[in-house]
Amino acid sequence: MSAMSDDDRRAWAYLAAVAEPPCAPLIALAARYGAVETARMIKARKLPAGNAAVLTATQARCETDSASTDLETAHRRGARLVTPEDDEWPGWALLALDQASTSVRGGGPLALWVRGPANLGDASAVAVGLVGSRAATSYGTHVAGRLASGLADQGASVVSGGAYGIDGAAHRGALATGGRTMAVLACGIDRDYPSGHARLLEEIGDHGLVVSEYPPGTTAAKHRFLTRNRLVAALSAALVVVEAGRRSGAANTAAWARNLGRPLGAVPGPITSAMSVGCHQMIADGQAALVIDAPSVLALVEASGHDNFVRSPATPIDGLPPDQFEVIEALPAHGGLRVEEIAFSAGKPVAAVLTALAVLEVKGLVDGSSGVWRLAESW
Amino acid sequence: MSAMSDDDRRAWAYLAAVAEPPCAPLIALAARYGAVETARMIKARKLPAGNAAVLTATQARCETDSASTDLETAHRRGARLVTPEDDEWPGWALLALDQASTSVRGGGPLALWVRGPANLGDASAVAVGLVGSRAATSYGTHVAGRLASGLADQGASVVSGGAYGIDGAAHRGALATGGRTMAVLACGIDRDYPSGHARLLEEIGDHGLVVSEYPPGTTAAKHRFLTRNRLVAALSAALVVVEAGRRSGAANTAAWARNLGRPLGAVPGPITSAMSVGCHQMIADGQAALVIDAPSVLALVEASGHDNFVRSPATPIDGLPPDQFEVIEALPAHGGLRVEEIAFSAGKPVAAVLTALAVLEVKGLVDGSSGVWRLAESW
Repeated sequence: MSAMSDDDRRAWAYLAAVAEPPCAPLIALAARYGAVETARMIKARKLPAGNAAVLTATQARCETDSASTDLETAHRRGARLVTPEDDEWPGWALLALDQASTSVRGGGPLALWVRGPANLGDASAVAVGLVGSRAATSYGTHVAGRLASGLADQGASVVSGGAYGIDGAAHRGALATGGRTMAVLACGIDRDYPSGHARLLEEIGDHGLVVSEYPPGTTAAKHRFLTRNRLVAALSAALVVVEAGRRSGAANTAAWARNLGRPLGAVPGPITSAMSVGCHQMIADGQAALVIDAPSVLALVEASGHDNFVRSPATPIDGLPPDQFEVIEALPAHGGLRVEEIAFSAGKPVAAVLTALAVLEVKGLVDGSSGVWRLAESW
Repeated sequence: MSAMSDDDRRAWAYLAAVAEPPCAPLIALAARYGAVETARMIKARKLPAGNAAVLTATQARCETDSASTDLETAHRRGARLVTPEDDEWPGWALLALDQASTSVRGGGPLALWVRGPANLGDASAVAVGLVGSRAATSYGTHVAGRLASGLADQGASVVSGGAYGIDGAAHRGALATGGRTMAVLACGIDRDYPSGHARLLEEIGDHGLVVSEYPPGTTAAKHRFLTRNRLVAALSAALVVVEAGRRSGAANTAAWARNLGRPLGAVPGPITSAMSVGCHQMIADGQAALVIDAPSVLALVEASGHDNFVRSPATPIDGLPPDQFEVIEALPAHGGLRVEEIAFSAGKPVAAVLTALAVLEVKGLVDGSSGVWRLAESW
């Protein structure tokens, strides 16, 4: 954790609780005004024009400031609040979520509650998501464990949702080989959900990471599973579905992976098994590659560029560092903006925007010659 | 069987035995001079210039005329010799082999020994090949049987090689549902190979078709399995590999299917099964489509044009009737030929070639304006 003031961290904890995630406009506000000032404005119910959505999203909880309690609970459980201002913030991995923020329930997390010794940023640098049915077969859990061990042996973090079935087998497979694994929960990091996995989650927290965007005490709820799935996809450089029936929660995570440009793999199984129907469908439809072992999964990651920032199709802005990327994304397709407008739109300080624009102009990607900044015509 | 003279049929039987198949130049000779005259020339060791290959190929067996014995043996076993001059000749299905005749062990069969009540031409009109490992697992044989029943129920003939494992399960699955199945052997139709399948082959001969290009009495040999595989692929509108290990004979049949432009499917299985490694490899490499049931196999056939003449990529000559197709195939890529030269090359009468050329010229595919015939420049 970086040297953030207690006031700052309390403000982040307040903001992380005040609206049900994801809430992209709240994140933009915090990026522009800082956490402390944003928290003050929300409590005072006085926000800059154009933030009606934030007022609505925070109405129910704005007067309840449980920040100190949440931070204490987290501390007692050996957990911490990681914000975009902290070094271990996985900004690179989450970038794709910001770009997908216009889709339903899209947008990144405002902050993440994290329990465990691993560095969140490092752990998500080469991470592979393994997901699948809770009602997995013994074949499925065997295969998930084997894949997870193989991936962990190769240095990849194994990301999953901590659930029964495939999720649990994946976490266990990574732990068994002394590897790194990350459980992304749909409830607070202090809730052992599912209860039968209390001991597994404890172990993951001891050796890997338990992650949630929900404050301590938050209970699991159906919509939170769907929201959580986007984080599993975003934190993974590639996602593998090990077993999935015709209708499966894993299909939702797989859809997020595709939305975010993450390569998708699926493990085949007996065509006589209802638990492999979803995987076979994804392969037959060309949505997922057929994968059989860790090397074939890592080949997927490699083919997509080896890092956790993957978009398809490739454009000249792929691979730009986040500060330049966010600035260029703030520019409209047609017409130009003043620096102050870009700074507002990107939620970044004017000085930082000017620095980024200067580099982007050298790269030929933006054009500031007309007094306003616009996308260069060449692309 | 059409009203062919006994002399003619004896000559065909002689030619079917005198060279080890495939022997494309012998077929061309028989097409040009007729079976009786070709047999006479081969026995006399006097062939038109340019037929040294035929002399070599027939040297060992030319003096042994077992035609009458072969026809008698076949008759006793309820079998018949089907030649290109018979109505049930599957010329359409075999056409792709003639085009592939330049490749190793390519070229069509000269004639086919056939046992069973089905019409060979009809049976190969909508036929699906099901092949796989002899050392199949119980999963594999179960799946092969289920697929075969499903395909037979939909009116497709199930083609396979009569071997233990997947082949046998496929034949049985088709028979079980009262459907049509075709066993293509690497030995004479009177040899029960493998011996443990004597009763199964009997049953196939009673209800479907046992097919071989080898004369009665021919024993199975390694090179004959490879040669037989091309017939399984050619007689099938689509080929499905049900189970195959890392190195499998099924891979050879699959390669033939691809060579001949037949759509290829593969059935997935447990990634823990060595018998599914080959199938997964073909799917992962994009060589085969993942198929799980009869409808997904028939969708492959449908996507490829529903009939047994499939080539890839499509060219303007795809879909030409055989008489025009064979004439256009006789024309060189550069330069022109006289009608007599085309007739010789295509193995067709001059009058038939002239008729075909006239139609092809109207279609804009050939150009006869310079005194010789050449491919039109437009394609």
